[in-house]
Amino acid sequence: MSIDINCDLGESYGPYHIGNDEAIIPFVTSVNIACGFHAGDPTTMRNTVNLALENKVAIGAHPGFNDVLGFGRREIKIAANEVYDMVIYQIGALEAFVKAEGGILQHVKPHGALYNMAAKDSQLADMIAKAVYKVNPEYILFGLANSELIKAGKHYGLKTANEVFADRTYQSDGSLTSRTQEQAIIHCPKQAAEQILQMVKEKKVISVQGQEVPIKADTVCIHGDSNNSLAIVKEISSTLLQANINIQNFIPLLT
Amino acid sequence: MSIDINCDLGESYGPYHIGNDEAIIPFVTSVNIACGFHAGDPTTMRNTVNLALENKVAIGAHPGFNDVLGFGRREIKIAANEVYDMVIYQIGALEAFVKAEGGILQHVKPHGALYNMAAKDSQLADMIAKAVYKVNPEYILFGLANSELIKAGKHYGLKTANEVFADRTYQSDGSLTSRTQEQAIIHCPKQAAEQILQMVKEKKVISVQGQEVPIKADTVCIHGDSNNSLAIVKEISSTLLQANINIQNFIPLLT
Amino acid sequence: MSIDINCDLGESYGPYHIGNDEAIIPFVTSVNIACGFHAGDPTTMRNTVNLALENKVAIGAHPGFNDVLGFGRREIKIAANEVYDMVIYQIGALEAFVKAEGGILQHVKPHGALYNMAAKDSQLADMIAKAVYKVNPEYILFGLANSELIKAGKHYGLKTANEVFADRTYQSDGSLTSRTQEQAIIHCPKQAAEQILQMVKEKKVISVQGQEVPIKADTVCIHGDSNNSLAIVKEISSTLLQANINIQNFIPLLT
Amino acid sequence: MSIDINCDLGESYGPYHIGNDEAIIPFVTSVNIACGFHAGDPTTMRNTVNLALENKVAIGAHPGFNDVLGFGRREIKIAANEVYDMVIYQIGALEAFVKAEGGILQHVKPHGALYNMAAKDSQLADMIAKAVYKVNPEYILFGLANSELIKAGKHYGLKTANEVFADRTYQSDGSLTSRTQEQAIIHCPKQAAEQILQMVKEKKVISVQGQEVPIKADTVCIHGDSNNSLAIVKEISSTLLQANINIQNFIPLLT
Repeated sequence: MSIDINCDLGESYGPYHIGNDEAIIPFVTSVNIACGFHAGDPTTMRNTVNLALENKVAIGAHPGFNDVLGFGRREIKIAANEVYDMVIYQIGALEAFVKAEGGILQHVKPHGALYNMAAKDSQLADMIAKAVYKVNPEYILFGLANSELIKAGKHYGLKTANEVFADRTYQSDGSLTSRTQEQAIIHCPKQAAEQILQMVKEKKVISVQGQEVPIKADTVCIHGDSNNSLAIVKEISSTLLQANINIQNFIPLLT
Repeated sequence: MSIDINCDLGESYGPYHIGNDEAIIPFVTSVNIACGFHAGDPTTMRNTVNLALENKVAIGAHPGFNDVLGFGRREIKIAANEVYDMVIYQIGALEAFVKAEGGILQHVKPHGALYNMAAKDSQLADMIAKAVYKVNPEYILFGLANSELIKAGKHYGLKTANEVFADRTYQSDGSLTSRTQEQAIIHCPKQAAEQILQMVKEKKVISVQGQEVPIKADTVCIHGDSNNSLAIVKEISSTLLQANINIQNFIPLLT
Repeated sequence: MSIDINCDLGESYGPYHIGNDEAIIPFVTSVNIACGFHAGDPTTMRNTVNLALENKVAIGAHPGFNDVLGFGRREIKIAANEVYDMVIYQIGALEAFVKAEGGILQHVKPHGALYNMAAKDSQLADMIAKAVYKVNPEYILFGLANSELIKAGKHYGLKTANEVFADRTYQSDGSLTSRTQEQAIIHCPKQAAEQILQMVKEKKVISVQGQEVPIKADTVCIHGDSNNSLAIVKEISSTLLQANINIQNFIPLLT
Repeated sequence: MSIDINCDLGESYGPYHIGNDEAIIPFVTSVNIACGFHAGDPTTMRNTVNLALENKVAIGAHPGFNDVLGFGRREIKIAANEVYDMVIYQIGALEAFVKAEGGILQHVKPHGALYNMAAKDSQLADMIAKAVYKVNPEYILFGLANSELIKAGKHYGLKTANEVFADRTYQSDGSLTSRTQEQAIIHCPKQAAEQILQMVKEKKVISVQGQEVPIKADTVCIHGDSNNSLAIVKEISSTLLQANINIQNFIPLLT
């Protein structure tokens, strides 16, 4: 049994510094690098690719809406074909840095509002999966576990990674509890780690309503911007290792 | 003997249409496609790649300054490493569309102010050539004939294409006559075609001062935005063909 | 009895030209000038202010989403306070040109997706009306007839102008027929003019379902981008004049 | 005798936080607020205007090049009329927030590369001064002491404020020592404060070459981004107060 741990990286922009990339990277096995649309200028992208290569973590493209001011977190009603085009563009931009620096690209994970919209909107999901497929059918598509995006990836024959959250609670229908509700966030590292352990070992999660919900967990998303994140990722790591579960990325799966 | 004819394409942006891409493309053998920084949004890039593939012309990336408002024609004093990064970014973005649509990339030609600055500034030229080399050492670097950019390309072992102009006059030192001066522009298609013919056959051009200037002409730049451009490119084509000079791109040189 | 005719102007951007500003301006009494977020760079703004002053038409600010690529037509889920801020910003930017060129500002009309969202979303509408009120409580707020935006304007004590459309059909609930449906667009200039005449004289419109719908018409929106628009605006002008209805803006109302 | 102390504020952008606005503002009498082109989104602008009003400091517009990525610090070769337009635009945008929040605008100070270029380039300086004059001839123009910008301001009859630097050394020709040279920066708060005291009392500065250079000091620029800045501004304040020199802005001069 094994699982991947991923986090978003390279979200600085020109004179503006954000995130604790160096602090979090030792605890993850895959990173999602911003591609210039919602964050991450070209120089930041190159530096972040190099940081990933030095730390021997797998690299993924993290395409988002063209909205630095909104950090890609604002929903934009966009034509489906424009999503296809903007995902291809951003994957290509990151690919070039990865190639130039001597690495390989492992995966693509949409960012922010695009990720959330693609979880539910099958047309958007289809466009994203098709974009990945057309650029390189070997790339792994990361998406919310059981989401439309994962379905779309499978439709194109892509390898997919079901993403789960350590610090978020789940509803009985398998969706994440909305941040607007109480109980949405898990602050306790021990509870977060146990949720992940149960997902990996028993392929289920207990919803806030108390029900067992089947879930597939291929990769855990960690946010790198708080001290608690570091505490959570450390607790997850030690809990999984104690349970003899490997923490590793999907590079071995790439042909 | 042979020569390539290139023009800039795909310079529309969102709701804004510019250029006569469909009208000019039958008369050229290579096209330089804008990569989103000075013009050319992702959807325009994909459409233009497809237009090029349908017309069987060779495709090049046309990276420029990040300045849509100034159309990449305003000089920006930029750190050398940022030029390196922004060129890699833009090549990658276009590469992804070319790959997704089933084509190959032939060349890279900087746009506007970046092209002009790289002709004279050896450090900028070096960064651009290095960026091309690191992304793919097979790509051909287009630059002003005899410029610093051509020298930099050779330094990295890149194939280079010396670019000449049909509708511009030359100074005795081999540079283009500044647009601020009279005699800078050649309006007469016959004169333009003869200048190109002499460049190809005799490897020289007559300067406005009346001197013979040695010049290497691998590719001719045509602007696609005026009726006169069409008249000029037609005259060049017929003049070259009559002289048994092939008009062809560099695809055969790619390994 | 009188009515204003308005159109959108100044939507060019840097090297990109759009619209037929000079052709349409003689037929309108008010113009909405883009403020740089969805279209209209600073130089275009100044030129358009001058064009308006030369043609003695009233000037309005036309704030939109910060999205040149989408021309402000894509809905963006934005926090209410950010709408407040971006409307203040854009009004101020246009005001400065109007002041510098010696004119006065008459009105504010949101653009594109912002206009449509503000017609239905009372919170957005409130933020826009409050922004106008805080910058200058004398400015007139343009909004879709009977919309939430008009209501919000009245709440702040602003003068409001109910906007109607000559070339669009109406539903029995007073809303515009969606463009996705047949019968949405009125192509015939005579029919368009008669719809406006009825709105002004009888304060009603006949819906596509055949019902009489009460409507208040203070200003007619004309699109300046087609030959048919010119035919429609000419027909409206002659029809209204023949019926002794004045075509005039709201400058006389400003204190 | 009196002098103003100013600093740049409001340079955050969307999700990106920069500067220590709250920490530095108690020590200054005027602030220059970024206007959205090189930094400072609309929401940041409103918040910063309110911060300034709460702290009873005078507010100035801080227009810069449209280059968030380069933070307005990269020179852009721009047409003179475009500078005129972009300065009017930015002053207007900030004016609207100041008006909406119930304050008044005191001054305009160009930012970064625009400031440095306007110090030497008389045509640029003329366009900036003209823009300020056309928007409001009462606004005070801040520029490098003895620069072309100050001259241009006087040409239009504007009140001007000669800006001096506490933490930079001067050359015998009155210019700042280039940052590329040693001795460019003054790190010692005591030395910085004494340089300012001499400027105010004796209207001169000692150059790095040891010569007395006449200089007029109306306002001191403080950078808010380091702990040393705080130490320097505190030392300046106590030194000036001990010498019975008032620290105050130019609001009393506004009619």
